[in-house]
Amino acid sequence: MQKLKVAIIGASGYTGGELIRLLIGHPQVELTMLVSESYAGQAISHSFAHLARYGHLHFEALDLAKLVTTCKVAFLAMPSGEAIKLAPQLYQAGLTVIDLSADFRLRERSEYLTWYQHEPAPAAILSQAVYGLSEIGYREQLRSARLIANPGCYPTATLLALAPLITNRLVQVGYPIIIDAKSGVSGAGRSLSLNSHFCEVNESLSVYQAGGTHRHTPEIRQELTKLNGATLSIQFTPHLLPISRGLMATCYAQVMPGVTAAMLTDAFRQYYANSDVVKYITTDRPRLSQVIGSNYCHLSSFFDPTTQIVTVVSLIDNLLKGAAGQAVQNMNLSLGFEPTLGLDAVAIFP
Amino acid sequence: MQKLKVAIIGASGYTGGELIRLLIGHPQVELTMLVSESYAGQAISHSFAHLARYGHLHFEALDLAKLVTTCKVAFLAMPSGEAIKLAPQLYQAGLTVIDLSADFRLRERSEYLTWYQHEPAPAAILSQAVYGLSEIGYREQLRSARLIANPGCYPTATLLALAPLITNRLVQVGYPIIIDAKSGVSGAGRSLSLNSHFCEVNESLSVYQAGGTHRHTPEIRQELTKLNGATLSIQFTPHLLPISRGLMATCYAQVMPGVTAAMLTDAFRQYYANSDVVKYITTDRPRLSQVIGSNYCHLSSFFDPTTQIVTVVSLIDNLLKGAAGQAVQNMNLSLGFEPTLGLDAVAIFP
Amino acid sequence: MQKLKVAIIGASGYTGGELIRLLIGHPQVELTMLVSESYAGQAISHSFAHLARYGHLHFEALDLAKLVTTCKVAFLAMPSGEAIKLAPQLYQAGLTVIDLSADFRLRERSEYLTWYQHEPAPAAILSQAVYGLSEIGYREQLRSARLIANPGCYPTATLLALAPLITNRLVQVGYPIIIDAKSGVSGAGRSLSLNSHFCEVNESLSVYQAGGTHRHTPEIRQELTKLNGATLSIQFTPHLLPISRGLMATCYAQVMPGVTAAMLTDAFRQYYANSDVVKYITTDRPRLSQVIGSNYCHLSSFFDPTTQIVTVVSLIDNLLKGAAGQAVQNMNLSLGFEPTLGLDAVAIFP
Amino acid sequence: MQKLKVAIIGASGYTGGELIRLLIGHPQVELTMLVSESYAGQAISHSFAHLARYGHLHFEALDLAKLVTTCKVAFLAMPSGEAIKLAPQLYQAGLTVIDLSADFRLRERSEYLTWYQHEPAPAAILSQAVYGLSEIGYREQLRSARLIANPGCYPTATLLALAPLITNRLVQVGYPIIIDAKSGVSGAGRSLSLNSHFCEVNESLSVYQAGGTHRHTPEIRQELTKLNGATLSIQFTPHLLPISRGLMATCYAQVMPGVTAAMLTDAFRQYYANSDVVKYITTDRPRLSQVIGSNYCHLSSFFDPTTQIVTVVSLIDNLLKGAAGQAVQNMNLSLGFEPTLGLDAVAIFP
Repeated sequence: MQKLKVAIIGASGYTGGELIRLLIGHPQVELTMLVSESYAGQAISHSFAHLARYGHLHFEALDLAKLVTTCKVAFLAMPSGEAIKLAPQLYQAGLTVIDLSADFRLRERSEYLTWYQHEPAPAAILSQAVYGLSEIGYREQLRSARLIANPGCYPTATLLALAPLITNRLVQVGYPIIIDAKSGVSGAGRSLSLNSHFCEVNESLSVYQAGGTHRHTPEIRQELTKLNGATLSIQFTPHLLPISRGLMATCYAQVMPGVTAAMLTDAFRQYYANSDVVKYITTDRPRLSQVIGSNYCHLSSFFDPTTQIVTVVSLIDNLLKGAAGQAVQNMNLSLGFEPTLGLDAVAIFP
Repeated sequence: MQKLKVAIIGASGYTGGELIRLLIGHPQVELTMLVSESYAGQAISHSFAHLARYGHLHFEALDLAKLVTTCKVAFLAMPSGEAIKLAPQLYQAGLTVIDLSADFRLRERSEYLTWYQHEPAPAAILSQAVYGLSEIGYREQLRSARLIANPGCYPTATLLALAPLITNRLVQVGYPIIIDAKSGVSGAGRSLSLNSHFCEVNESLSVYQAGGTHRHTPEIRQELTKLNGATLSIQFTPHLLPISRGLMATCYAQVMPGVTAAMLTDAFRQYYANSDVVKYITTDRPRLSQVIGSNYCHLSSFFDPTTQIVTVVSLIDNLLKGAAGQAVQNMNLSLGFEPTLGLDAVAIFP
Repeated sequence: MQKLKVAIIGASGYTGGELIRLLIGHPQVELTMLVSESYAGQAISHSFAHLARYGHLHFEALDLAKLVTTCKVAFLAMPSGEAIKLAPQLYQAGLTVIDLSADFRLRERSEYLTWYQHEPAPAAILSQAVYGLSEIGYREQLRSARLIANPGCYPTATLLALAPLITNRLVQVGYPIIIDAKSGVSGAGRSLSLNSHFCEVNESLSVYQAGGTHRHTPEIRQELTKLNGATLSIQFTPHLLPISRGLMATCYAQVMPGVTAAMLTDAFRQYYANSDVVKYITTDRPRLSQVIGSNYCHLSSFFDPTTQIVTVVSLIDNLLKGAAGQAVQNMNLSLGFEPTLGLDAVAIFP
Repeated sequence: MQKLKVAIIGASGYTGGELIRLLIGHPQVELTMLVSESYAGQAISHSFAHLARYGHLHFEALDLAKLVTTCKVAFLAMPSGEAIKLAPQLYQAGLTVIDLSADFRLRERSEYLTWYQHEPAPAAILSQAVYGLSEIGYREQLRSARLIANPGCYPTATLLALAPLITNRLVQVGYPIIIDAKSGVSGAGRSLSLNSHFCEVNESLSVYQAGGTHRHTPEIRQELTKLNGATLSIQFTPHLLPISRGLMATCYAQVMPGVTAAMLTDAFRQYYANSDVVKYITTDRPRLSQVIGSNYCHLSSFFDPTTQIVTVVSLIDNLLKGAAGQAVQNMNLSLGFEPTLGLDAVAIFP
């Protein structure tokens, strides 16, 4: 069978690098265009020394005509506000577009305007976008999707943690759900910034956009509300860890009267019974190293009878299930491949 | 003036090492006995290469008679359950005892039994112990204390974060307060354990004793309750960071109706107006590196009008304000020195 | 085709964990026995949370009779001095034995006695052992080997760096070759030791066994001498890096008169022209992240005309090309599979 | 006594931050001007959150007239090529100038031109500059110096390691001396660059400017040659460690015939007998954590009788003895204070 030709737009960042690594190893696709304006003309090994074996691959500038005539799938690993311009053209030219930015995630155009401060996507195209988190109810829509809004890293970890509880009405909606999240630095991308400068991050930990000001807040709220009907109150606070990869969301919710530890555990097990990607783990010490290097999400939960709070710990690799891995999983779904094709690597430890 | 002779019992661990480092530089004391059973007879530089300049100092085995006749102050940096045996003897012999274990922190003997699973200290001696967190109301008692229960690292960061809000009844007691805390590995001590083995910790993050099972939970609850009267519900969850030092507590509490951001900020500023150690910092990015290497606690807060939750971020160096630094501060108070004598080092960055 | 049944003896350490991870993904083998005395009876996920998907695999105690009747291949990931006892029995029972300890690496029994301080392997069995570094001339012998002495991590990186120069007599043997090597902590294993305790390693760098006292010195010297004929003088000094994985050997050798930079580069390119594993890389900044997570070795060289010294930088992942990956590569060779079968993962970055 | 007014030009980088921290605690000086063009007008706490206590201190733009009329001492923490313009003006206005750049280190103007590619300092002013490494023979000159060329971090560690051996003619000059050096990332400064971006450095190790191309090569060679008379051949290779602070130089030299281990040890002990800063340490495991946070240099040596090579391991904190600490030490010397005034902090561990 002929391999499917795919393009990556924004191929020289960390997410781009992971997309290249995953797609090089994918049996059904052929990496055909690697677009990077800043590195156009250079071998990818110049920017990604770990890909030195693939010396024949080069970055190139965006050539839209070539792109739409050559490729069937395009991954957009561009900043929010830029994908919004390119995605519609590719979609209309018949490509399957998997957008890793936030540009097609928020359903309400006014929400997007409020949080991203630029013009949202036109309603017509926005309505075509499917939210790319297959495990919380989008699987069927994704099978026929041609424009996929790949979720944010924090929403991915958080929604997978809370969906079984929200869907099964095991937690109260009158109390805010606290989401204390921690991410490795690769989530901040490869663009230079003092906040990602080695000595500013190393041997430290910082909180940023506390007080509900992070842009992933409306994304999480939108999807939780969709699962439950009721509008939920959430307090989402991200922290920057001095590690390269990995994201943990520690979520705290008040359970409904009468809920037991076993009911909670059962809810997780049943909700993900058929998932190859999300797994509920019984452990007294959830740790990020369980998932780093893999496309898996591991969940664990702890019920405190004194406070009637359930704590859910959700672990993902922010570059894989939180970005590039999820994007490939969504491509697989929309093209009719096995969802985990090319995504079966186990976590690497230590 | 003659210097005061002090002893450290359990001097070869990380807290012991910090006590040595601080007391070497303290103008009013003379390090007289450094007790370590495992390293008895060895130069301290054998165990602490960073103290190579102090080659004349040696560890020795415990000689109780010598200790009580020679020293006026004893720091106990021993495991909980061991201090309980030694402290009463030293106290009765007239020494000032600063215990860094948990053995004298819980006022209720039954609480201690429940959480530590050994016999609590006798009521007579326990009633002499003063909780060593001067900033939340114990300052005067500490001035005349001869048995000081130095607080746990997590309780220190948490109580300093919440005391102004609880005392001023700015937060609701009907909702549980969530304390999501993160500590560097030195907090786990120098004893070998797989959980402190380099490759198990590095490039990861783990949650431990989730669900309200950590022994610092009753300590925090006891002191918060004391500040407010009402019994508070707290959910305390510690995480292990892949760094050597530093502790952050991110605390989430529901404010009382009508409370504003300014009222919160004012409460912190006033509560710590006279403190040389605790400082309220206005920043959009609290980071652990602000305090590492210092005895300071930095607090920042964020109010989310949507959720009516105040997020307080508390930063300490777990070995300093969270252990050895606080112990020296308490010694200073009880001996009538300036509280920050020998503790004025600024954080080291980067 | 039926899969080959393999056993790992010493399966619960870091090398054991990597062997499990690699062999789980190997298309021609079936992991049949995972021997660990300390974890016998437990699911491997208890010890290796990253392998949670493989919950059906359990560690078991050594049952020699079962082992020799069931398995065709045994990987020994045991301390030196223990493999020496087990390997002969397995070999004589007809198994292919790949020993990751040092017990069969030194050809001279007296050398072994001197450096390892216990009785060397019997001469008869020792003579059957083939040194498992296919790239420096052992490839043909490995094709028919049934007892393979998998090289040390430092010797692997060093010999791959120097073989092209020594073989082609491009460097002087009158001057000592300096090998300044740096390794991640996983090379020190999973056994508890203060030197691998997180806080002792983190944010530091240490030198150990300087002055030519490390046991890899005779191993490197033996193999270099074999390549050249002349007895070479080497100064090998290992350093411990505060990272989990990765090993760099920076090697300094005086070139022969008349040697040019181009001659050096050509020697590397030609020597490894047919290698899928070792690659010469032109770069001004060799970095460990090029190879971490892969079985590759990357080499770069720098010639200083002023000093007439060539500096060769050799990079491997100490757990892969330096241990488990090389062991699987050797298994592939000896069983007639493609050498890189199951070993094609690219390095993971960042 | 009135405190001496000092200025720091280039105060917002890492070296600037350390100068501020040290001088805040120095009993004889008053920090009067903190010049930073990029942060002019801001409180230093905005840039240095660890200095939050010193909220009254602000950065300001350079005002030369104000500087020369107000201050007696100026520290220049500017890039090479910029100090060259400012230093002469300050020197001629009567200030004591301590330049932390490379602009006054090389005695030969042609060497400077070759390595730094801009016009060297005028001969008249260059001849006034004293090389600021008091321990290798410059102590007396420094007492009357008004223009001090503060050494590079790598030269500091290397020269302190080799001076006793070179001066006492214990090592051969016919063989090149190999200097394999490793530095933390703070040595690369606070300016943004992909090579200091967190994810590029973390969990890796890189070699840069191998083959004798680093600018510290001529500086080291100049000073070693001065100590011995003979022109020495050195091979200096720096590596970038994934840590914030600390610098290790591992130096390899061939000893003269008849030299013994004891002779080497004695040479170190005698050479530094009167030094408060440099200390020879007997250890089998030199580690960077011995010195981080202090102005000390620790040296250890290892003699290999087989190769006749002595390995010297030199440890410094690159921001202290390698930059800011050394600058303050030089200020103390030139102003007649105790050399270690304000520099007596012990290393912080862990």
